[in-house]
Amino acid sequence: MRITPAEGMNEFLPGETALRDELIGRIVATYRSFGYEKITTPAVESIENLDNSDGGDNLRLIFRITKRGRKLEDALAAGDPAGLCDLGLRYDLTLPLVRFYANNRHRLPDPFRVIQIDRAYRAERPQKGRSREFCQCDIDVIGSDSTDCEVELITVTARALGSLGIGGFSVRVSHRAVLRDVISRCGFPDEAQSTVAVTVDKLDKIGEEGVRDELVAKGYGESCADALIDVLCRGKLNEETLRDYTDEATAEELCGLLSRARELSGGAYGVRFDPSLVRGQGYYTGAVFEVESDEFGGTVAGGGRYDGLIGKFIGEDIPAVGFSIGFERIFAILRDAGKRAAAKPKAAVFYGEGEVADAIRFADGMRDEFDVTLVRRKKKVGRQLAALEERGYERAVFLDRPDEVRIFGKENEDKGSN
Amino acid sequence: MRITPAEGMNEFLPGETALRDELIGRIVATYRSFGYEKITTPAVESIENLDNSDGGDNLRLIFRITKRGRKLEDALAAGDPAGLCDLGLRYDLTLPLVRFYANNRHRLPDPFRVIQIDRAYRAERPQKGRSREFCQCDIDVIGSDSTDCEVELITVTARALGSLGIGGFSVRVSHRAVLRDVISRCGFPDEAQSTVAVTVDKLDKIGEEGVRDELVAKGYGESCADALIDVLCRGKLNEETLRDYTDEATAEELCGLLSRARELSGGAYGVRFDPSLVRGQGYYTGAVFEVESDEFGGTVAGGGRYDGLIGKFIGEDIPAVGFSIGFERIFAILRDAGKRAAAKPKAAVFYGEGEVADAIRFADGMRDEFDVTLVRRKKKVGRQLAALEERGYERAVFLDRPDEVRIFGKENEDKGSN
Repeated sequence: MRITPAEGMNEFLPGETALRDELIGRIVATYRSFGYEKITTPAVESIENLDNSDGGDNLRLIFRITKRGRKLEDALAAGDPAGLCDLGLRYDLTLPLVRFYANNRHRLPDPFRVIQIDRAYRAERPQKGRSREFCQCDIDVIGSDSTDCEVELITVTARALGSLGIGGFSVRVSHRAVLRDVISRCGFPDEAQSTVAVTVDKLDKIGEEGVRDELVAKGYGESCADALIDVLCRGKLNEETLRDYTDEATAEELCGLLSRARELSGGAYGVRFDPSLVRGQGYYTGAVFEVESDEFGGTVAGGGRYDGLIGKFIGEDIPAVGFSIGFERIFAILRDAGKRAAAKPKAAVFYGEGEVADAIRFADGMRDEFDVTLVRRKKKVGRQLAALEERGYERAVFLDRPDEVRIFGKENEDKGSN
Repeated sequence: MRITPAEGMNEFLPGETALRDELIGRIVATYRSFGYEKITTPAVESIENLDNSDGGDNLRLIFRITKRGRKLEDALAAGDPAGLCDLGLRYDLTLPLVRFYANNRHRLPDPFRVIQIDRAYRAERPQKGRSREFCQCDIDVIGSDSTDCEVELITVTARALGSLGIGGFSVRVSHRAVLRDVISRCGFPDEAQSTVAVTVDKLDKIGEEGVRDELVAKGYGESCADALIDVLCRGKLNEETLRDYTDEATAEELCGLLSRARELSGGAYGVRFDPSLVRGQGYYTGAVFEVESDEFGGTVAGGGRYDGLIGKFIGEDIPAVGFSIGFERIFAILRDAGKRAAAKPKAAVFYGEGEVADAIRFADGMRDEFDVTLVRRKKKVGRQLAALEERGYERAVFLDRPDEVRIFGKENEDKGSN
């Protein structure tokens, strides 16, 4: 049997799990303070829903679950690979949310402010920092087309990040309609919109030159490619010139959103328009945003408006906008920086043979102040005491000598079990 | 697209999720107060580990995940159904725990008191009360062969159940060695041990007569079957007569465990020896226990000692014992009884066009006392107010008339959103 987790899957030690739970608790508390409500959706969805969702490249990364019993035999006999599976693991929390909303909307408030903090799965090629099972922290507002939602989402997400001790970040904002208009004005044909957007989305990875080369390689004119880079990356398109590139309504919406979000930041973080921001998902229809932190090596949160997605389920367009915190990256960086969860002080009660009931009762008297572990006394008590001190215990008491409390050196308090 | 969850999968509304989180929080707090530490293991394990685990009937219920890309094509071309999958969803938390321990033991305390609260998956035929995705709450002590662990596990589990408001329960205890000796003494051959145990395990479902008939149908003598029923179910075998049926060491161990656990119950719950208790899992080697509550329709927790399981991974026997709370049944009954999570009081701030930033700042001043939701004022404010009252909001404030606080009737405080 293999003792390591399956490839790309993670397990977390006690100290790591305590830190994860604490970070998640802070995020949830911030979100709840703005009236967001947490729901739970299953990790397993029907494969039809997953395959027909707007997940772009993620659709290729779905873990697929085979049918059972006779149905599997039939599919194998028919030699039909497409018929092997009837279920799959979700690749994000948006599809389950949209399905949940469609299924329960008559029982939900309008608009619905919702929290999901849960696992998703992608069959990525395993590499450092890319897990196949990962936790996402999403908030969404469903049922309102007002950009007040975007302002609120940016503000509450920034506060949630702040509550984790993440500083020095800034928020980049753009709008799908602006990108569409710019691509058009630079001379690309209408049918090129999505492939051009895919290339622009690679700016961070391949740079301006790379984007230009890829567009030309895709068969578009050099002048179009140059114009596009010029507009998106060289500062030509900014809040002041926005009205030269897009319609008045979009410009007003975006500028209003930016100024309000900036006002609410109180200068604690920057909020700026960045026309080169694309965000991969095909389902975005309006504003898109991303939080970047140099300290945290790039993007720590992202989101946008997706007004068309819910309509696919219920045949009626319902506006929606969401923001997702990239929990795994934040957790990994805080853990590696030595951050630990706050915990109740720990104590140990040593006892001997036949004394377990007495020891539990004695320990009960200490539980208000401490988490208390029972320790069966061995011959080499010194070694047992040293192990407890190493693990961050604050004190030890011997059941047969209750007045002799052993208090461990404070210099060890940051050495909790990990 | 389907808007309902996949068959047998569950989703939970905001009020349900809040209750689940609160119940889990209480269980964790109780466990932590006894020095247990929470870990996280992946929901996906290698299919070899799952298929080779000691899961009995559960092995037939594993959700299997297909290989990806070329490897899947090769397996299909080879027409080999066994080679289609390389991963699966865990059917319980014990296999992942054992693998985790094998992988990390040098970084863990000895003994290791561990909490896992997480999801598991079984491809059960969907029926009321049987979900295919469900949450388990497990605690285990790994590395100690002392029955002090059993006493502690019974005590801390009973307290965790008490913290959820579950009363009127009792703990049944037996021991695998006792069952083995009794089966032997009633005249069954050695090789019949496991099949006889499987039949006895059905007592709750098919009754004494059913067990007797099934044993006879399996080809064993009527006299053996009658003797077994007589010993296990008619009170012949009890704490006083235990030494007539099993060896002195086992009898002493079991009686000591029972008397200590009983002593610690303080009479709040019963602890009794029930020789007919089997518990299905093949991996149990010592004491087994189950908590029953009439109010909760049967078993709400169960566990036992499994000293051989970890040895399969690390080639060295490590003693271990665990207790698992059946979270889904407890949650469903408490929810259906109308129990709700405690929550911070909720307030709403009404605002108009262009005022979102002011409204957020105004709401900030109320967040110490309330979770505050922003509400964009519509023409029919009365309807908006009624919806808030219905959802359990305590007050509403209008940004343009901040002194005019609307306080909702207390009679609605138990009508929170669900």
